[in-house]
Amino acid sequence: MSGTTRIIDVGETLFDDNERRAEALRVGLSARGVLMVDLMGSPGSGKTSLLLETLRRLPAGIRAAVIEGDLDSTVDADAVQDAGWDAVQIRTGGYCHLDAAMVAAGLEKLGFRGPADRPYDLVFVENIGNLVCTGQSDVGAQLRVAHLSRPEGDDKPAKYPVMFRNAHVLALTKSDYDAFAGPGGPLTPFDADAVRARSRFLNPEIRIFQTSCRTGEGLDEWTAFIAERLRSCRRDAGR
Amino acid sequence: MSGTTRIIDVGETLFDDNERRAEALRVGLSARGVLMVDLMGSPGSGKTSLLLETLRRLPAGIRAAVIEGDLDSTVDADAVQDAGWDAVQIRTGGYCHLDAAMVAAGLEKLGFRGPADRPYDLVFVENIGNLVCTGQSDVGAQLRVAHLSRPEGDDKPAKYPVMFRNAHVLALTKSDYDAFAGPGGPLTPFDADAVRARSRFLNPEIRIFQTSCRTGEGLDEWTAFIAERLRSCRRDAGR
Repeated sequence: MSGTTRIIDVGETLFDDNERRAEALRVGLSARGVLMVDLMGSPGSGKTSLLLETLRRLPAGIRAAVIEGDLDSTVDADAVQDAGWDAVQIRTGGYCHLDAAMVAAGLEKLGFRGPADRPYDLVFVENIGNLVCTGQSDVGAQLRVAHLSRPEGDDKPAKYPVMFRNAHVLALTKSDYDAFAGPGGPLTPFDADAVRARSRFLNPEIRIFQTSCRTGEGLDEWTAFIAERLRSCRRDAGR
Repeated sequence: MSGTTRIIDVGETLFDDNERRAEALRVGLSARGVLMVDLMGSPGSGKTSLLLETLRRLPAGIRAAVIEGDLDSTVDADAVQDAGWDAVQIRTGGYCHLDAAMVAAGLEKLGFRGPADRPYDLVFVENIGNLVCTGQSDVGAQLRVAHLSRPEGDDKPAKYPVMFRNAHVLALTKSDYDAFAGPGGPLTPFDADAVRARSRFLNPEIRIFQTSCRTGEGLDEWTAFIAERLRSCRRDAGR
């Protein structure tokens, strides 16, 4: 088992490097009143759909951009750009999550070069679809959002606790799936109260929103929350 | 970017160690006519449900067991044991995929100790829910199965190509979701032909099954395929 021990040692060193870099990014963005939001969750948990709905609903005048992480494609960045928003695509070539160095490179591409540059007010980072690794890596965002969709099942906080412990916010997406039932009962049995309770047991401070991009449930409340966080970030920076 | 470079160097060394260990496991199992199957896919892609249906449908007389990987819980091993099958739970404590050393420890717990021990004919490894990292780590199985469920969306082969390149088999799960539609159209638009074409572009040899544990679609065909693979493995070992 010595190989396994070595993995952990190396990981911790790199983890410390990443933590320092992430904290520096966060401090620099906060000083400028720029809010960065890290969007995490399984493949297909609805991150891109919710992001596009959020961008569409943001109050006018907010300059927003997106840093997209993907292993190999530009599918999501294309969708963001088609919707009229600026995006940077980070292709990791197989690496399973974004880290602070990758996001720093993305911010630079967006025009955050000198310490006073503020080309955008709000930057979303759409992380690699991964309910494990992304929750363990700080990219420098002030707000970390976990997405969990109905069809993934209600046992996920128990099975993937790290994500639920480390996120500030949980978006329970695809809530409209509740309305579908077939001969065998509901399409996706999902005990949302149990998910809420388990998530709060792991993380008492977590904010939870229930959303559906099909019915619009929760989208205004969610977007208002993001806008309020941005206002608060700007106030703290004296803007 | 030196930190990132270091990650890759270390990863490659460990990767080589793991590859050697995995190959040794595979050779040892094959020599005994034991088939090991690695089940991979996103959280909620239906791995456990399909596994339970497969175990239930296997021809009588096959001794099967399950090695369950999870970050922190025993949810899936409990489900397997409740259904009457032997299981070993590996709790990785946050580590994002199983590796050959972990699976070797699991096999030992199942009674594979000396090189002639054959307590089971068929061992399923249910990997951590992760469409990225599990596809990059060989656990020593002869057969690697990727699961992709309808609600995850049909863009996944483009976004997560490593998994689709490295799997021998693709299970397109939750096919019954096609039958559900609401006011806005189908519940989960999913172009299965595009998924098949893209998967075969990445991996011409990949076998593709379409399954639903609700309707039973594809389950007999899938289980027959596993049983045939086991027979072929035993024939090759002279059993």
